[in-house]
Amino acid sequence: MQRYFIKPEQKTGVHITITGDDASHIARVMRMAPGDKVVCSDNSGMSMVCELIDVTPQQAECKVLETYEDRSSLPVSVCIAQGLPKGDKLDMIVQKGTELGASSFFPFSSSRAIVKWDEKKGAKKIERLGKIAKEAAEQAHRSVVPAVHSPGSFQDLLNMAEQYTIKIAAYEESAKSSEHSLFAAALSNASPGDSILCAVGPEGGLSEREAAALESHGFLLCGLGPRILRTETASLYMLSAISYHFELMG
Amino acid sequence: MQRYFIKPEQKTGVHITITGDDASHIARVMRMAPGDKVVCSDNSGMSMVCELIDVTPQQAECKVLETYEDRSSLPVSVCIAQGLPKGDKLDMIVQKGTELGASSFFPFSSSRAIVKWDEKKGAKKIERLGKIAKEAAEQAHRSVVPAVHSPGSFQDLLNMAEQYTIKIAAYEESAKSSEHSLFAAALSNASPGDSILCAVGPEGGLSEREAAALESHGFLLCGLGPRILRTETASLYMLSAISYHFELMG
Repeated sequence: MQRYFIKPEQKTGVHITITGDDASHIARVMRMAPGDKVVCSDNSGMSMVCELIDVTPQQAECKVLETYEDRSSLPVSVCIAQGLPKGDKLDMIVQKGTELGASSFFPFSSSRAIVKWDEKKGAKKIERLGKIAKEAAEQAHRSVVPAVHSPGSFQDLLNMAEQYTIKIAAYEESAKSSEHSLFAAALSNASPGDSILCAVGPEGGLSEREAAALESHGFLLCGLGPRILRTETASLYMLSAISYHFELMG
Repeated sequence: MQRYFIKPEQKTGVHITITGDDASHIARVMRMAPGDKVVCSDNSGMSMVCELIDVTPQQAECKVLETYEDRSSLPVSVCIAQGLPKGDKLDMIVQKGTELGASSFFPFSSSRAIVKWDEKKGAKKIERLGKIAKEAAEQAHRSVVPAVHSPGSFQDLLNMAEQYTIKIAAYEESAKSSEHSLFAAALSNASPGDSILCAVGPEGGLSEREAAALESHGFLLCGLGPRILRTETASLYMLSAISYHFELMG
């Protein structure tokens, strides 16, 4: 069933009004008609099976038939702190990371980042990333859209750390020194409900100084196996491994 | 250290001749000079640290200083059988799948595939995918380039199955029915040296009939957690989980 995220003001009692792009999608792309069903999620973790009552490309009216709780979230909340990557890699990380269950994304600048965040274009870019996250969440049948935060500094990343139960940084030097078990050990010590902050450097990696600063703020410097992963692959690896550990190994 | 794959004929004793794009890369992109070091891999699992003796954009000569065995392969060999996806997703699957340790890729056509393989353009496309795999293997510090096979039919996929110790198919219906432990159970039963065939349907998924045929050929139909993954994400999830299971959990 097709899924749409709604804002609280779109819902009055058992009645939901869908507008904008989503209404157009229902009418024009899905060609749905009264009687057809959709799932609406209010981004609080509740999803509702709804029946369409009236459909125009501008507005779709529907009524709630059934409400159910979120079954699609990772048992741990994961924030992906991503060193600003080149090109459109951030789009891909947000799209795939949303499918893989991330709770939020925090892009950060660091000493070896090639990309500088353009403050002028920044707001628009964050808006676009939010849209990518929303669409990926709908597609993945998630009932919560992960938050995409505006980029911060490396110091901001350090300051965030204390809010998280577990802090992990992917560090190539750890991979080279054959340190391959710290990440798995960290997940083994985690419990459902814990929050995990996963930091990944940009293309150029984290500097030794940054790695030391992360370590002193409680981050574990972890290798992710013997192959050197691209920055965008490292994020997705960590999320896949977290899902495998908590959702599949059970 | 920068890595390059060489063919057997490029090596004579301790002397290696690098030509073509790689020579140009050494001279023009990396701006290396005699005395600088590179790693050459012969795609048999052996890697060699080499010192450059002579560098031109057409040809680089180097001598082998040290030879070491492959430390970058997954302990199990994994073939990704991928239902033909739309657009340039196959490029992405081959690139990221190579980083994540796949041994080979086998694209296959199936009933719900939207894409038809163009036999005329096919050979060129396979050549390009082979190049993507080679570059990704160099970047990931792998000493073997995974094979990219020409696409086959669904029947070819079924025929391949008996060559593999473990056969897994990602199946959305299994995910919906909350079957989340079969994949982890299959990996727990695998041993280093085993071969794993991972099948993923195209965007439209596998039909019920195809799922039944796979099952009768020894495939386990597995869910990959409670979120619905895009076809290209499913391949990368399986490889990440296999790496996590065998390389990080130890």
